[in-house]
Amino acid sequence: MSGNTIGKLFTVTTFGESHGTALGCIVDGCPPGLAISEADLQIDLDRRKPGTSRYTTQRREDDEVKILSGIFEGRTTGTSIGMVIYNGDQRSKDYSNIKDLYRPGHADYTYDQKYGFRDYRGGGRSSARETAMRVAAGAVAKKYLKQVHGVEIHGFLSQLGPIRAETVDFEQIHQNAFFCPDASKLEALDAYMRDLKKQGDSVGAEVTVVATQVPVGLGEPVFDRLDADLAHSLMSINAVKGVAFGDGFDVVNQKGSEHRDTLTPQGFTSNHAGGVLGGISSGQDIVARIALKPTSSITVPGETITNSGESAEVITKGRHDPCVGIRAVPIAEAMMAITLMDQLLRHRGQNAGVSGPTPPIPGQSPAG
Amino acid sequence: MSGNTIGKLFTVTTFGESHGTALGCIVDGCPPGLAISEADLQIDLDRRKPGTSRYTTQRREDDEVKILSGIFEGRTTGTSIGMVIYNGDQRSKDYSNIKDLYRPGHADYTYDQKYGFRDYRGGGRSSARETAMRVAAGAVAKKYLKQVHGVEIHGFLSQLGPIRAETVDFEQIHQNAFFCPDASKLEALDAYMRDLKKQGDSVGAEVTVVATQVPVGLGEPVFDRLDADLAHSLMSINAVKGVAFGDGFDVVNQKGSEHRDTLTPQGFTSNHAGGVLGGISSGQDIVARIALKPTSSITVPGETITNSGESAEVITKGRHDPCVGIRAVPIAEAMMAITLMDQLLRHRGQNAGVSGPTPPIPGQSPAG
Amino acid sequence: MSGNTIGKLFTVTTFGESHGTALGCIVDGCPPGLAISEADLQIDLDRRKPGTSRYTTQRREDDEVKILSGIFEGRTTGTSIGMVIYNGDQRSKDYSNIKDLYRPGHADYTYDQKYGFRDYRGGGRSSARETAMRVAAGAVAKKYLKQVHGVEIHGFLSQLGPIRAETVDFEQIHQNAFFCPDASKLEALDAYMRDLKKQGDSVGAEVTVVATQVPVGLGEPVFDRLDADLAHSLMSINAVKGVAFGDGFDVVNQKGSEHRDTLTPQGFTSNHAGGVLGGISSGQDIVARIALKPTSSITVPGETITNSGESAEVITKGRHDPCVGIRAVPIAEAMMAITLMDQLLRHRGQNAGVSGPTPPIPGQSPAG
Amino acid sequence: MSGNTIGKLFTVTTFGESHGTALGCIVDGCPPGLAISEADLQIDLDRRKPGTSRYTTQRREDDEVKILSGIFEGRTTGTSIGMVIYNGDQRSKDYSNIKDLYRPGHADYTYDQKYGFRDYRGGGRSSARETAMRVAAGAVAKKYLKQVHGVEIHGFLSQLGPIRAETVDFEQIHQNAFFCPDASKLEALDAYMRDLKKQGDSVGAEVTVVATQVPVGLGEPVFDRLDADLAHSLMSINAVKGVAFGDGFDVVNQKGSEHRDTLTPQGFTSNHAGGVLGGISSGQDIVARIALKPTSSITVPGETITNSGESAEVITKGRHDPCVGIRAVPIAEAMMAITLMDQLLRHRGQNAGVSGPTPPIPGQSPAG
Repeated sequence: MSGNTIGKLFTVTTFGESHGTALGCIVDGCPPGLAISEADLQIDLDRRKPGTSRYTTQRREDDEVKILSGIFEGRTTGTSIGMVIYNGDQRSKDYSNIKDLYRPGHADYTYDQKYGFRDYRGGGRSSARETAMRVAAGAVAKKYLKQVHGVEIHGFLSQLGPIRAETVDFEQIHQNAFFCPDASKLEALDAYMRDLKKQGDSVGAEVTVVATQVPVGLGEPVFDRLDADLAHSLMSINAVKGVAFGDGFDVVNQKGSEHRDTLTPQGFTSNHAGGVLGGISSGQDIVARIALKPTSSITVPGETITNSGESAEVITKGRHDPCVGIRAVPIAEAMMAITLMDQLLRHRGQNAGVSGPTPPIPGQSPAG
Repeated sequence: MSGNTIGKLFTVTTFGESHGTALGCIVDGCPPGLAISEADLQIDLDRRKPGTSRYTTQRREDDEVKILSGIFEGRTTGTSIGMVIYNGDQRSKDYSNIKDLYRPGHADYTYDQKYGFRDYRGGGRSSARETAMRVAAGAVAKKYLKQVHGVEIHGFLSQLGPIRAETVDFEQIHQNAFFCPDASKLEALDAYMRDLKKQGDSVGAEVTVVATQVPVGLGEPVFDRLDADLAHSLMSINAVKGVAFGDGFDVVNQKGSEHRDTLTPQGFTSNHAGGVLGGISSGQDIVARIALKPTSSITVPGETITNSGESAEVITKGRHDPCVGIRAVPIAEAMMAITLMDQLLRHRGQNAGVSGPTPPIPGQSPAG
Repeated sequence: MSGNTIGKLFTVTTFGESHGTALGCIVDGCPPGLAISEADLQIDLDRRKPGTSRYTTQRREDDEVKILSGIFEGRTTGTSIGMVIYNGDQRSKDYSNIKDLYRPGHADYTYDQKYGFRDYRGGGRSSARETAMRVAAGAVAKKYLKQVHGVEIHGFLSQLGPIRAETVDFEQIHQNAFFCPDASKLEALDAYMRDLKKQGDSVGAEVTVVATQVPVGLGEPVFDRLDADLAHSLMSINAVKGVAFGDGFDVVNQKGSEHRDTLTPQGFTSNHAGGVLGGISSGQDIVARIALKPTSSITVPGETITNSGESAEVITKGRHDPCVGIRAVPIAEAMMAITLMDQLLRHRGQNAGVSGPTPPIPGQSPAG
Repeated sequence: MSGNTIGKLFTVTTFGESHGTALGCIVDGCPPGLAISEADLQIDLDRRKPGTSRYTTQRREDDEVKILSGIFEGRTTGTSIGMVIYNGDQRSKDYSNIKDLYRPGHADYTYDQKYGFRDYRGGGRSSARETAMRVAAGAVAKKYLKQVHGVEIHGFLSQLGPIRAETVDFEQIHQNAFFCPDASKLEALDAYMRDLKKQGDSVGAEVTVVATQVPVGLGEPVFDRLDADLAHSLMSINAVKGVAFGDGFDVVNQKGSEHRDTLTPQGFTSNHAGGVLGGISSGQDIVARIALKPTSSITVPGETITNSGESAEVITKGRHDPCVGIRAVPIAEAMMAITLMDQLLRHRGQNAGVSGPTPPIPGQSPAG
């Protein structure tokens, strides 16, 4: 329950720094019997992987995940699943110049203050490199949710700088390097990113994640509401500065008569709430949006200080994403999957009925 | 660790329904020796209390808190603190008409689906009435943070419907019924609320919470970042649909060169980040904003269904807040205090240095 | 998750000191729909209550429990259950003489060292008085386990000083003030206790708790094995110095051929293991034994020190149990019930099957 | 917080099966700045390693631990520490004959019942092989406790079958393959074990663990008392059936006047309590004893059933320890270290004083 674990029944614990030996995680609490392979996890890891388009960092990271335990004869056994990704293309020397500098907008200063010193190679633990393991763990949750309950999780880039997707076509997401659901914006995005690269600058983005077919009833009020737990998991992603559900910050200027979603015998007629009422899933799509800040790793020179408190100039060379929001799409999907999975197991555990037939004790054979 | 507990070292567990016998909470993990009295807690409870202005519900709730344990000779003993508020003015009959109805925008439907039935009196556990105990618990945290570290927490109404505070004067907050920090907007707010009441409608709001003098170093990456934990605690407040730090959703359209806060030998020159870098407090003010939806308890008639799935019309009479955002101000302060307190204790526990003198074991006398 | 909470899905959080205003607890995670009343809880509270026989303390404590929340129309709603017992007969003056003394064998010294000062009235939080709330919370778990799974929990005094029960008759337990399952020992116990009282001394005891009809499969290896979690909950009872399962410490001198329980098509032929294999319940009776030390509150004079480190003599007058093991019987039952309940919910949550039909989402109506 | 994690601030999460690819763990919450290397961990791993004497299994397991993260320039960084041990000498075929059998005294039956199927190779996750990672994690805690507080942890074999150590010489422990502290018993132990091997049988044992120089004040009543948490961690070790502190089960037949440890201006005059009063460390040695059952992996034929419920005979060939208690010594030390460490950090977090000077925020430089 220290800071590198998330979840209560379905828990994910991670380790690993940008330029250490390896990244890894332990997924605990996955129900037994789920067919899962390294190939299943690799699909999402490849979606997150840098170097796949001209719009993201040109670092090559193979991100090849190895499952070390918890799977037997192709299925989860109900025991903890260990996974590891060895770090390959590290180029530590790229980073030696920032050893004594506090890059503005980075965690260099706060890590040094908190821990007394830091692994300065590529940001160490504060690097978004750790999110690779979130994606691997999330892929386990995604597969279970899909197979057992039909839940699907669709992440996409809903805005990049000033360019906003106006239509959402889930199929389109997988057909472009921006994870953009609106094909009519691709040209503008391409032009914007080329221009940005010339400037040596970066830009923010909004990512939207939609989960469909989510069962009614997930969420544990009053503190572990589904939306509160999702806010925690989504806000824990690097660079995220805001999380919102349904109409989000637009509710500030809405009337009650406008916001409330009408219930009819045929179902809800709108989804301003984003699929959560009173902290519990309503059976409608869960719709979450996150705001990602522009990365501070840019070649535009900036003023800063050294770790001895003296003025200095910083230019982050390295190979960085001009918009970290793009590659955040599979990460946000993973975090939503992990939290939905955890809430699903918690709900099942607590809410077996008292009246009616004895709730089954799972896995118990008649001979038992 | 079920859903009614928040925090890891400084934990708050609550109980109580809108129309049950009492509300209560247990605050566990408060350091010993803190002078605390019921009067200390009552100050914030009175700020949250309904019926204090024409802009909030006219229900009278005395919200008189009683401390049942954990204090001896006026000081905390380090053991768990039990507190209770007995419910007074309940008028259960006001609610009997909604027994079989699912009010749109409320948790009636989701509670029935999750638990199989619900305490329909005034929303039961889903009522914002439970937040009274959050305020009492938060007052303990606030006092400790203030006394030991000088941390102060200022919440205010930054927007109500279309009206936005343009200046922030912390003193002004306590001088008007809106918790508005901009005196020039009070007249407009008054007019807006009168008009809203005539319409029988409600409106959303944005509340901002600022914590000053927060020590550098709070936050436990990668999952329990300070901002992620704050997102959890703030999103767990009734009616909140969005949480953001610093520039929040504005970062979507910012450039890296614009967003990053410059460090100089004299300190930071701006605070776009809202006081958190890499999930760890930077020593700057923590600035969080939350979006609160307009309450669905309005007299504008709405379409809905009964619990047997048939069409029905609903008009929520009762005595409700036309803008729940107003009274959310002390609640948001409380949740920020609880989370900062928890992170402070976690940081202290984990980060005692290895080199240098032996870290003191607190409370141990030389004779021990 | 601070020290006054136990359990993960079914959690119990307690507060209250020996001579404070009240004791209380919050039971969180109880499934909805369980019929429960104050009278249900009072049965076990009365079994624990002092002053009911000549063998226990003559303090009168009414221990009348009030349920403050979480029950609606006689059934649990799935929300947190608040309970309180107001302290009545306190006689604080009895204890003023120990304010500055560290009674040997008590927690006076360690509480002062840990927290810097202590509530010295009757032991404050370290008094076994707090166990009243464990009994109330345990009664909720007991009722659920019995009603839904047929689990019954039988605690009894298996040894007091040199006198050991040689037969176990569950019916007999409820017919004598010793909770002794062997009627042939009652006379000897009575004589022993009269003699002890004359001496002004106290004596240790062993309590055994047996749970029958426990479903196979409870326990979450490798750390939260069923026996490890039970060891935690039973060792947390005041005065307990040892916990053992099945043959317990006798295994030290057993051979493997002797200890292993043979499985036959008709079931197990013995229960040396005490119902747990590999940390998971085997479907046999769970058999736990605990060793309780003799209370240090005796009138035999003892040497000690004051809180300023000077020599002193101590005689504990007050009204104390000469054998705390007797009243520990319902407490031990309660702790076993709480832990079995928690493990039951955890097992259900994690182990819903993947193959076969979709596991039901509890509480969800077809119309959902 | 699922079952493969232990601890709250200093947490250890493990994975790995007997015959899987690798074992691993994540240690989270270790304070920054601790010098630690693979060689530090290997010392205890080698003490636990099988095949080192004629008295333990002849399986060869290199148990070579690799640190994958959390260490930079030889010191802990405060981030999570990933570690892995790849499995070498596996010989899966040795175990194919038990695929469909439920070995008596093993977890075969309960794992199948709980999870629906199991990794039958060498016991899978239920094998004591997983304890290797506990030893590695415990070595981190041990080093911190020793270096910062001078705490030392000494485990030894206090009894094997009928042979009991009568003297305790900490130096002697490291000089014989039995971890026996009484040199006069070595010959008898050797003879006993030779005889046992001829019989093809196994025997139980008692292991004692003593922690010296433990600071006063560790333990979080009422549920997370130091002894309750230690009972949890020690009972979670494979084959343990009993845990006791100080005089343990002997207290059952003790008088209060005999048991209570007298306090004098010079300190305590005895340690019947085993170093814990009211669930809080007293500054005396912590003395814990555990009872380990004889392994069921013996060549004496036994009756059992197959997983289809039919009668069968079982003879466990493989290469097994005739007394698992011997190799349990370093494991028990590790678990005590992990729990002491966790309680130390929790105590530090919660109990910083309120009066007096502002408690330091660790790691913060004056310039911060």
